Amino acid sequence: MEQKVRFAIIGAGRIGQVHAENLTRHIQEAEVVAIADVVQEAAEQTAQRFGIAQASGEPEEVFGREDVDAVAICSSTETHADFIIQAARAGKHAFCEKPIALDLPAVDAALAAVAENGTKLQIGFNRRFDPNFRNIRDAVRSGEVGTPYLVQITSRDPAPPPLSYIRGSGGLFLDMMIHDFDMARFLLDDEVEEVSASGAVRVDPAIGEAGDIDTAVVTLRYVCGALGVITNSRQAVYGGDQRVEVLGSLGSILCENNTPDRVIRQTEAGVVHAKPLYFFLERYMAAYADELRSFISAIRDDTEVEVTGRDGRAPVALALAAGRSYRENRAIALSEISPP
Amino acid sequence: MEQKVRFAIIGAGRIGQVHAENLTRHIQEAEVVAIADVVQEAAEQTAQRFGIAQASGEPEEVFGREDVDAVAICSSTETHADFIIQAARAGKHAFCEKPIALDLPAVDAALAAVAENGTKLQIGFNRRFDPNFRNIRDAVRSGEVGTPYLVQITSRDPAPPPLSYIRGSGGLFLDMMIHDFDMARFLLDDEVEEVSASGAVRVDPAIGEAGDIDTAVVTLRYVCGALGVITNSRQAVYGGDQRVEVLGSLGSILCENNTPDRVIRQTEAGVVHAKPLYFFLERYMAAYADELRSFISAIRDDTEVEVTGRDGRAPVALALAAGRSYRENRAIALSEISPP
Amino acid sequence: MEQKVRFAIIGAGRIGQVHAENLTRHIQEAEVVAIADVVQEAAEQTAQRFGIAQASGEPEEVFGREDVDAVAICSSTETHADFIIQAARAGKHAFCEKPIALDLPAVDAALAAVAENGTKLQIGFNRRFDPNFRNIRDAVRSGEVGTPYLVQITSRDPAPPPLSYIRGSGGLFLDMMIHDFDMARFLLDDEVEEVSASGAVRVDPAIGEAGDIDTAVVTLRYVCGALGVITNSRQAVYGGDQRVEVLGSLGSILCENNTPDRVIRQTEAGVVHAKPLYFFLERYMAAYADELRSFISAIRDDTEVEVTGRDGRAPVALALAAGRSYRENRAIALSEISPP
Amino acid sequence: MEQKVRFAIIGAGRIGQVHAENLTRHIQEAEVVAIADVVQEAAEQTAQRFGIAQASGEPEEVFGREDVDAVAICSSTETHADFIIQAARAGKHAFCEKPIALDLPAVDAALAAVAENGTKLQIGFNRRFDPNFRNIRDAVRSGEVGTPYLVQITSRDPAPPPLSYIRGSGGLFLDMMIHDFDMARFLLDDEVEEVSASGAVRVDPAIGEAGDIDTAVVTLRYVCGALGVITNSRQAVYGGDQRVEVLGSLGSILCENNTPDRVIRQTEAGVVHAKPLYFFLERYMAAYADELRSFISAIRDDTEVEVTGRDGRAPVALALAAGRSYRENRAIALSEISPP
Repeated sequence: MEQKVRFAIIGAGRIGQVHAENLTRHIQEAEVVAIADVVQEAAEQTAQRFGIAQASGEPEEVFGREDVDAVAICSSTETHADFIIQAARAGKHAFCEKPIALDLPAVDAALAAVAENGTKLQIGFNRRFDPNFRNIRDAVRSGEVGTPYLVQITSRDPAPPPLSYIRGSGGLFLDMMIHDFDMARFLLDDEVEEVSASGAVRVDPAIGEAGDIDTAVVTLRYVCGALGVITNSRQAVYGGDQRVEVLGSLGSILCENNTPDRVIRQTEAGVVHAKPLYFFLERYMAAYADELRSFISAIRDDTEVEVTGRDGRAPVALALAAGRSYRENRAIALSEISPP
Repeated sequence: MEQKVRFAIIGAGRIGQVHAENLTRHIQEAEVVAIADVVQEAAEQTAQRFGIAQASGEPEEVFGREDVDAVAICSSTETHADFIIQAARAGKHAFCEKPIALDLPAVDAALAAVAENGTKLQIGFNRRFDPNFRNIRDAVRSGEVGTPYLVQITSRDPAPPPLSYIRGSGGLFLDMMIHDFDMARFLLDDEVEEVSASGAVRVDPAIGEAGDIDTAVVTLRYVCGALGVITNSRQAVYGGDQRVEVLGSLGSILCENNTPDRVIRQTEAGVVHAKPLYFFLERYMAAYADELRSFISAIRDDTEVEVTGRDGRAPVALALAAGRSYRENRAIALSEISPP
Repeated sequence: MEQKVRFAIIGAGRIGQVHAENLTRHIQEAEVVAIADVVQEAAEQTAQRFGIAQASGEPEEVFGREDVDAVAICSSTETHADFIIQAARAGKHAFCEKPIALDLPAVDAALAAVAENGTKLQIGFNRRFDPNFRNIRDAVRSGEVGTPYLVQITSRDPAPPPLSYIRGSGGLFLDMMIHDFDMARFLLDDEVEEVSASGAVRVDPAIGEAGDIDTAVVTLRYVCGALGVITNSRQAVYGGDQRVEVLGSLGSILCENNTPDRVIRQTEAGVVHAKPLYFFLERYMAAYADELRSFISAIRDDTEVEVTGRDGRAPVALALAAGRSYRENRAIALSEISPP
Repeated sequence: MEQKVRFAIIGAGRIGQVHAENLTRHIQEAEVVAIADVVQEAAEQTAQRFGIAQASGEPEEVFGREDVDAVAICSSTETHADFIIQAARAGKHAFCEKPIALDLPAVDAALAAVAENGTKLQIGFNRRFDPNFRNIRDAVRSGEVGTPYLVQITSRDPAPPPLSYIRGSGGLFLDMMIHDFDMARFLLDDEVEEVSASGAVRVDPAIGEAGDIDTAVVTLRYVCGALGVITNSRQAVYGGDQRVEVLGSLGSILCENNTPDRVIRQTEAGVVHAKPLYFFLERYMAAYADELRSFISAIRDDTEVEVTGRDGRAPVALALAAGRSYRENRAIALSEISPP
């Protein structure tokens, strides 16, 4: 049997714990040798919970460890690019949560470091590993829908995050819709060359006072000529709502929401089906494990990762273009944001 | 029993025949005393088929008949406004197919004539009488979805019309999406104040050569602040696809497509459900009868019609705004098209 | 154009009015020249409502009329067989509601009279004309499910009929399940040779006191060797529930319930779909018209009717066998009820 | 933290491996100290695969080990009762696959040994831990469907097992429908007092030649008076089909099949949904882990197990009654099989 890939996890927050659980319990090909968090107590608690030998309050320490093959960067967004650079320089592979950074120069610096050092970098666009979306992408790629006409992506959170989170998030386009920008590229395997964005504050006026929007519609034009549309809402009280559809010359392929069960209640009040899974962690539970399995395979087999640095950069550019389109009330070519 | 409303039908084409069948066979409160078409033979054939006593090759004749209470204007679009004016001046109520005209001055002249003469005018936005859409509109109006956030309208024809039709249609926004602009206003009972349109030729290059598009995404901003999005495609090979959804603070209400049956086949090849009803005539069969019943009730009870001249005008303005947005690649305020 | 088929309707109750409406308004190939009911006032009211020229308080009168080609027998069950005989002897075709009679000798006498006089007799098993069930029957006949293994028929009324009705109904097997016995034969195009019945009083003890049951399960063995099962309940508070499924070597084909619309509400309380159509008249509205169209075609083209006297007899025999099985708590071969 | 429950697994076949994987990888509260199989090589391979320290070719050895708290009995059916007895005498708790035995005296001897020694015994009716069925059971128990009228259980395997398996299986009622007999009791929390069975050979004549049937319908009468029906088929080519429904005075609650995804393809050929999960291992993956978690909780908290020895006995009695009913073609009271 090949050797296990030895991980250090940076960041012991919600997503760091998800990865810790998957790496320690559900993925046989990995082991976790250390976890680090600027809040040392958080690192220690998570270490204890998942039986991780070392816990540290200084994330940078992990890059110097010889027993670390790869790092999982789960810290706050503003640290991502720098940790990617440090990992690359230390010869460590990096799995990094999205987004890489909130501006393109920082993203580009990180990607350059990875390229120079020949390490691997995979971005945490976990939805690419969801069976529904993957099935649709594969169908499109195989020609099942024919020439693509239109991509429709509906994405709604069950409830808005705390205002404190929103203030540091970079805004809806960079924080929430970035997943959908990635999905838009993933589904058609094509680049978007123009975006046109509308936004509104409908869910909570406090979100507007914090300088953000909570409701948005963004129209996309792909290089191939197809159109796309993404709608986002920070609140859908019935649960997380994530549906995509691709229409083409041979038909349409779409997905409905995952539900906790398939039970139907028929009463005088109506015929009631299960609600969508409420929270993204439940919805994408399997996808979180599968993205790490994919990263580990790329390391062990020395193959290209499935979600590259370029895949991490493009949605940031799209989000920045969407922000400008929203402010200037006109369509924005991607070339205005990221000159070729 | 009250007297029946006596109709003359102008136009013996496809839609004229639909109305002839409903008025002669399925609506007890109406009778059809004459049908006219510039192609006299067409008028005669339809008259024979539905047992209509008089057939004429000169549409204007019907306005002089004393035994006509109301006219159903089913002729080509460029004649609509003039026939509405003639009907109003002759004291006849008019039921007119959409659109009233392809430019606002012509629309306004028609509405003015109706106002001066105190006759009734109802526009043939039949989808307002579809049980699915009506149910959703009623739910929104009753507060069931709370504060509206987002309206999503998907509208796809099974196949594009002939190129000859497209050339004279006024383009996708005025010919096809006009139904969806009406639906957008109907669902929220609110006006749209800004539109942003994208278009593409994906289905057939010949449509592009004819100066039109076949695929479009239009984003709407309502006066109340909600956003909307309409997507159109001239081709969905699996059938006519007409779905709408309204998301609000209390949840979402949407509809799936109507199908000819509820049969499910489970085989090794998959679990196969019925396709959507293919053609709009099948899909809206009951709605065509119900819009006429509503018009007849308004005449007999002397009440306001359910789809007014103003409801006929607004979607024309929206279509014109969408056209300009598409050409200028920027959001267009309705006030640019139709100054207040 | 061929001449219209001239009908007399016997019975002005609920089902008589359904047929009157279809024959006078929706079926161009028929006209109704008379309606008769032992309650003359009922006949007169229905005649006025649907514009029928003659109303009579003496049903037998219609058999002597020269301007009557066919009778629609919608009177109470105990009169069916006798009216069929009178119609046959008078050379009138007969469309008769189910069941022909509650005992086999009476059924056989009626069928013999029809055979002797060479008239046509069609039984009102309207569900055979429902698009869902017909689609499934056609699929089975075409070999789509392969060798049939199992037929499952679920049939539930929204609410039990009045006790007065139940007392004279012949019991659940002859009154309610008779439709499902017909469906069982229709779906596989095969005869049932053995039945095994269980019954219970669950909905209302008063039904038990009236000597009937309100809940039943009947297992069938077809001549071809396939099994079947019919479940009946007199009460399903969410609406009329009528589903069938045929499983075979190549898969399964089934149908879900028809609903008034395809609207879905997503709220914190759940995802709510439309309930099944409540009442059988709504559910089978189109089927009631189509069975008459089929009968009229058989008369005009002089072809075999689609639901024959034999099709009317077999479910009566099955219902009688089910009754005996229920009482004796054992499987009953059809040959015990109706020796070959 | 409490101590882990130390397991020995008896039987390294398909189901033994399922339990081994769950106990070693997914259930933190357990550890597996030994695995035994009469085929020593099988035990060794499974031990290596899941990192189990000891592998043995003599199952009886595990009862003498001091480091074993509980045994998981996954060997062939004829050994179950004896291993339960040995485990009880050795003071080990036992988790035993269904059925306990193919005759009631053997079952009763096993239950008596457990009772005498005060150990715990849980039967592997894993479907009780499926979220769909559990949700329905809970709804019935909470009164959500009101007075129960009718239980309908549909259970179809994707393909029949090998003939060699069928010959030693005890027949469809004891091998396949036993799960449904358990489900029937579980859903209503009530006993069945009478069964009436029909069977047929439709899938494969070789099954008939082996003395078994492959298609069956069994009607149940519950003590409370409700009726039930179970249908079984050894073959549904579209996948494992497991649906249940409970109808009562307040409505009906049912479940559809689980599918691998929620993708829908709309093409000219139809609207295609995902097929049911093909194999029972995929379908009940989570339920297999949850039944062991429940057993472990019962041990650690010293509480009653969720699926008792009595729950293991009753379905055997029902299967025996169904077999007699099928052979004698009459309803069989449970009191004939298992006198009170």
